[in-house]
Amino acid sequence: MNHTDLEQDVIIVGAGLAGLKAALELQQAGKRVRVLEARDRVGGRSMPGEIAGQTIDLGGQWVGPQQTLLLEQASALGVKTLSQYTAGASILSLDDNVSTFTSDIPKLPFLSLMELALLQRRWNKEMRSLPVTAEPWLAAKARQWDSQTLESWILKHVHTRGAREFARTITRAVLCAEPRQVSYLCFLEYLRQGESLESLIGIEGGAQQDKFAGGAWQIPQRMAAQLGDSVQLDSPVHAVEQHHDGVSVISNGHTYRARHLIMAIPPVLAAKIRYNQPLPAKRNALLERMPMGSVIKIHVAYERAFWRLRGLNGGVVSNNRVFNVVFDQSLDDDGMGVLVGFIDADHAIAMSATDEATRRQQVISDLVHYFGPDAAHPIAYVEQDWTAEPWSRGCYVAHTAPGVITSFGDTLREPCGRIHWAGTETATRWCGYLDGALQSGIRAAQEVLNR
Amino acid sequence: MNHTDLEQDVIIVGAGLAGLKAALELQQAGKRVRVLEARDRVGGRSMPGEIAGQTIDLGGQWVGPQQTLLLEQASALGVKTLSQYTAGASILSLDDNVSTFTSDIPKLPFLSLMELALLQRRWNKEMRSLPVTAEPWLAAKARQWDSQTLESWILKHVHTRGAREFARTITRAVLCAEPRQVSYLCFLEYLRQGESLESLIGIEGGAQQDKFAGGAWQIPQRMAAQLGDSVQLDSPVHAVEQHHDGVSVISNGHTYRARHLIMAIPPVLAAKIRYNQPLPAKRNALLERMPMGSVIKIHVAYERAFWRLRGLNGGVVSNNRVFNVVFDQSLDDDGMGVLVGFIDADHAIAMSATDEATRRQQVISDLVHYFGPDAAHPIAYVEQDWTAEPWSRGCYVAHTAPGVITSFGDTLREPCGRIHWAGTETATRWCGYLDGALQSGIRAAQEVLNR
Repeated sequence: MNHTDLEQDVIIVGAGLAGLKAALELQQAGKRVRVLEARDRVGGRSMPGEIAGQTIDLGGQWVGPQQTLLLEQASALGVKTLSQYTAGASILSLDDNVSTFTSDIPKLPFLSLMELALLQRRWNKEMRSLPVTAEPWLAAKARQWDSQTLESWILKHVHTRGAREFARTITRAVLCAEPRQVSYLCFLEYLRQGESLESLIGIEGGAQQDKFAGGAWQIPQRMAAQLGDSVQLDSPVHAVEQHHDGVSVISNGHTYRARHLIMAIPPVLAAKIRYNQPLPAKRNALLERMPMGSVIKIHVAYERAFWRLRGLNGGVVSNNRVFNVVFDQSLDDDGMGVLVGFIDADHAIAMSATDEATRRQQVISDLVHYFGPDAAHPIAYVEQDWTAEPWSRGCYVAHTAPGVITSFGDTLREPCGRIHWAGTETATRWCGYLDGALQSGIRAAQEVLNR
Repeated sequence: MNHTDLEQDVIIVGAGLAGLKAALELQQAGKRVRVLEARDRVGGRSMPGEIAGQTIDLGGQWVGPQQTLLLEQASALGVKTLSQYTAGASILSLDDNVSTFTSDIPKLPFLSLMELALLQRRWNKEMRSLPVTAEPWLAAKARQWDSQTLESWILKHVHTRGAREFARTITRAVLCAEPRQVSYLCFLEYLRQGESLESLIGIEGGAQQDKFAGGAWQIPQRMAAQLGDSVQLDSPVHAVEQHHDGVSVISNGHTYRARHLIMAIPPVLAAKIRYNQPLPAKRNALLERMPMGSVIKIHVAYERAFWRLRGLNGGVVSNNRVFNVVFDQSLDDDGMGVLVGFIDADHAIAMSATDEATRRQQVISDLVHYFGPDAAHPIAYVEQDWTAEPWSRGCYVAHTAPGVITSFGDTLREPCGRIHWAGTETATRWCGYLDGALQSGIRAAQEVLNR
């Protein structure tokens, strides 16, 4: 292959936020880029939707004040933020017992609350012992923490039922995985990436503080618009060939050539691509051990936001119901009421095997359990099953079981020849979020520019 | 697609022992079959090799008296067994201290030996509580055992250093994975599949009692010969399409059609195939969470089997050296001496990243540590790095991290439409062994015949 055969300098696989950001950075540096996207749309885990005429996000939607890359990107594209609705009380459904609470602290027995405070302090202390370089395998206690599941850790260190269920529930909510599936080191690193437990799960001052007027999905769409014809949809990549002076990417029977390649797709999808130069065993082992979480995101619309009239903010958290985390998604007090929520982890896998009617019935039944009969008659229902998305294989993010970070983790961002790795899983801050995706794209583009 | 378009009744993906056995069973029942094999050879994880003129197995080689399917298959094909050499003492290298032992019991401190005996009894008792139907997710304590790693279990229940290191060493030896990577339930099920710990790791009366004269690889080769042109090499399958009346398999740009399909490949490879009808989320999640172990198999030849002259049987087990399990592979007392051994788990990943010269130096250095200067000058060295095999992705077998069996395990053998699942990972007895592969092929063929 001669240099003159090259159609572009860099090929980027995946037009999620990571790939689009990498492409824009490279384009601004004068490089010719081509983004190959398997889907018929850009955005990856950010995706537009609509419920009863209201535009919604079927994928990632919130932004916290610490997520400066995402805030700057949105601002530069003219996408405005608005606050998550918080006025009034939230609902806790613990073992089917419904109660309300107004602070950040749910109503738990006194001993559970005490233990929760200790737990939070301990996690924040332990996570601060992890390297800020996002190399958790280098932590002093890496081996110890990566040898156990989060569930083992909970059983050993947490004693009240309330605090145990809290710890399990937040694992399902943030990683969409069961605590027994996740390495304790993976969990701590995820806390560190999100600054603290409070910042990860909080609304005011946390990762759910704001959302984007009209939807977060506008951000990748506008980024893609800046790239114009460089973004090519319906182009799944099945094979990658590295040569001494370049790389070839095969998609739909066509071969694209470039100097370098950025893979901006989830690890589990990168593992499915054929490489003429096999990836190192350690790298391959990592890609084959980073499964995605399981989640179904569901919007339910009502004539009115009846909960607001009753002094509720629409927020729900439950340790055992199927539709286990809920937020208000209404545009205002007077118009249509919208709730958005999630079916996480094992519940998502189970409900994915049923049909929409069954899921809808379950979701409504859970909402009636939380909010009473007012919730029984929605005017619209929209669901997005991320476990069934072949080009994501789950959401929000990949996690690792014990022994993966310490045995294979140090290959996470290591280029393999001319292949560079992006995607929110490779972020050093806000892994699993749109912000982390942007950061990974910037880093991968810089790696290529530095060569 | 009309019936008349069908080129065969059943397509089998993978010409390892599972696929070949399924094909033979179907052929004997009068079905037209085609076996598509990605490699340029049959046998899968059974593979021929040669060292200094002696034929060897680069893959699976031993057979135990309980493995009746494999023994019958070999016998029917005229492949004879011969005993693993056991005359004399074995070597234990514990924390670099070399000692010899003549019974099955290595020389450990008294308390460690006591604990080892208790451990063995406990494991055998717990494994007997698992369903004989190979549905470990149905066990009474499934959730508890699948919530922790084997390492967590060891730290909690084993207290002497000797017994702990024994437990870790056998995990690496039988699963080629680190104890922190393996669910305790997965480990117990593996013990159950192999009848007991003694039977799994033992020589006389156990899974290493005999080997095959000339090599186990002759078995798949002779099976393939009985299938003739039905076996097609160099035919990797990248896509599978299910239709209402049949299935299409795309390989090398050619489409093969049949009524039914048997996938007789490791789960991690089945996860890389594109399916026009996406697999159920639960099934997909399982395939994406069954990574293979990591192992490099190495033969070293000497002018003489010098160890035999010194009353040693060539057997070595070490808890920390890189070349950590060794067996005698010489044909007789008088001719060339051959040792065969393994680099397992993390050591395999690390050594795979080096080069053959480095590995050879390490292996010889370990052998000199065990056997003294006699081992310093081999006449030949042959290695097979299974971590680098794109059509196996590791050996000997897949394992699962915590939370996989209990969340996704019940899809292991469940057909997906017209797709049936074989491969040693789907066996109900001797999973991970050639015997289990044969059993899975028989079962999958029967499933298709029963439709």
